[in-house]
Amino acid sequence: MTTSLPLDHSGMGVLSRDECYDRLRSARVGRLAFVSDGDPVILPVNHGVDGESIVFRTAPGSKLLAGDSELRVAFEVDGYDVDRRSGWSVLVRGTASTVEDVGEIRRLNRIGVWPWADLVERTYWIRIACYSVTGRETVHPAR
Amino acid sequence: MTTSLPLDHSGMGVLSRDECYDRLRSARVGRLAFVSDGDPVILPVNHGVDGESIVFRTAPGSKLLAGDSELRVAFEVDGYDVDRRSGWSVLVRGTASTVEDVGEIRRLNRIGVWPWADLVERTYWIRIACYSVTGRETVHPAR
Repeated sequence: MTTSLPLDHSGMGVLSRDECYDRLRSARVGRLAFVSDGDPVILPVNHGVDGESIVFRTAPGSKLLAGDSELRVAFEVDGYDVDRRSGWSVLVRGTASTVEDVGEIRRLNRIGVWPWADLVERTYWIRIACYSVTGRETVHPAR
Repeated sequence: MTTSLPLDHSGMGVLSRDECYDRLRSARVGRLAFVSDGDPVILPVNHGVDGESIVFRTAPGSKLLAGDSELRVAFEVDGYDVDRRSGWSVLVRGTASTVEDVGEIRRLNRIGVWPWADLVERTYWIRIACYSVTGRETVHPAR
């Protein structure tokens, strides 16, 4: 737990961009939010980090693919410790698109991202081009 | 891990509504998604379950309070086991509103929901009236 973070207006510690990417890379599960039929939904996904973007597999017929070809999304990873009442989260905001390039799909197929939900084949890759990556961590008053 | 769940079209096991509420009640952290300035965002919150609705505290000036007085939101809790490559999630879709009734606020103040982020006082309660509560769990093929 970092103790000397700068604080935001709500008293949360602010994680650096590098720290945010470290946590995005080490998390095995993230949560994707997008707007479906006018309302937000959240779905967990097993993701990877490819350069500065987030990538994950999906199946034909997914709600995400049914949407715009360029859909605004949010993506979040977090971690917490119930006993210490502490936690952190990283929020990515970006634009999702289906990866169309065959060479790129081949490359992504080798980066080792496999969805745990494996009864249906997830042959499509979605890339989130990130325009904002921010992270926060709870900071408790000194006792 | 339940092994005889009905499956959805994507090969995920479908949790019953009662099971969804059990998991909502036992989770200490959930994630709220809503649309802010036209784009989805996700924020973790410490929540409670009050009857069939989700409640949590927030501070004056929060993005959520700045929005509509009746905002469509999504709320998610999940859990996973990296070693088993398994996980589950419960997704709530609903309408968020600020609790205005003083008696209700007093009652909620006693249900024992305290945000871990405690450097700023969170004196407002938000209630999510749920119109959809669904849950999924990974199911692996028999080996």
